[in-house]
Amino acid sequence: MAKHGALDDVLVALADPTRRAVIRRLGEGPASVSELARPFAITLPSFLKHVRMLESSGLVRTAKSGRVRMCTLDRERLSLVDGWLDEQRRVWDERTDRLAAFVAGSAEILESKEQS
Amino acid sequence: MAKHGALDDVLVALADPTRRAVIRRLGEGPASVSELARPFAITLPSFLKHVRMLESSGLVRTAKSGRVRMCTLDRERLSLVDGWLDEQRRVWDERTDRLAAFVAGSAEILESKEQS
Repeated sequence: MAKHGALDDVLVALADPTRRAVIRRLGEGPASVSELARPFAITLPSFLKHVRMLESSGLVRTAKSGRVRMCTLDRERLSLVDGWLDEQRRVWDERTDRLAAFVAGSAEILESKEQS
Repeated sequence: MAKHGALDDVLVALADPTRRAVIRRLGEGPASVSELARPFAITLPSFLKHVRMLESSGLVRTAKSGRVRMCTLDRERLSLVDGWLDEQRRVWDERTDRLAAFVAGSAEILESKEQS
């Protein structure tokens, strides 16, 4: 259940183009909040809300270094999404296997009927 | 921009354990709304809100067949999330390449200094 909550938070945090752009920028390396805010035409308080949401989802860690707040990406947290997508792919593959087995079984029955 | 909006909708739709369970179930094949609702201890109107949200995100298509509403998963829509994750991985790989090039360059400079 705890894992569910974490994935919920990560997905909500990613469901916004500004926050996704921040994640993308942090993929290139750590950056300060003001550096991250620069490309966006929003006020700093609005931008800080986005940073706080990324922080509470665990996607971004922040630490004060003097008067500057530095942000770092936690890639591990993003892998929660990969994990869920992989799980879906397994479900699809199992379905394909079942369908294939059914088709093979039907072909066998038809064949044995033709032979008898 | 339209793509951004679509990805936003998909991520919000996935940010809920009930909706993710529905996606998972539909990965096994199409199902009716009442079949999908069965495992959940919520009212049908509450469940229908989830289905509608999945539908408006494009993850699920529904069609009436007599008195039954059948639901189908649109895997293509889920691949929007894969696409975004792949993009992040490219950013990380580029960073690793840059770091490796920097380390190699530094080693060369040190070597030439030692030789002179």
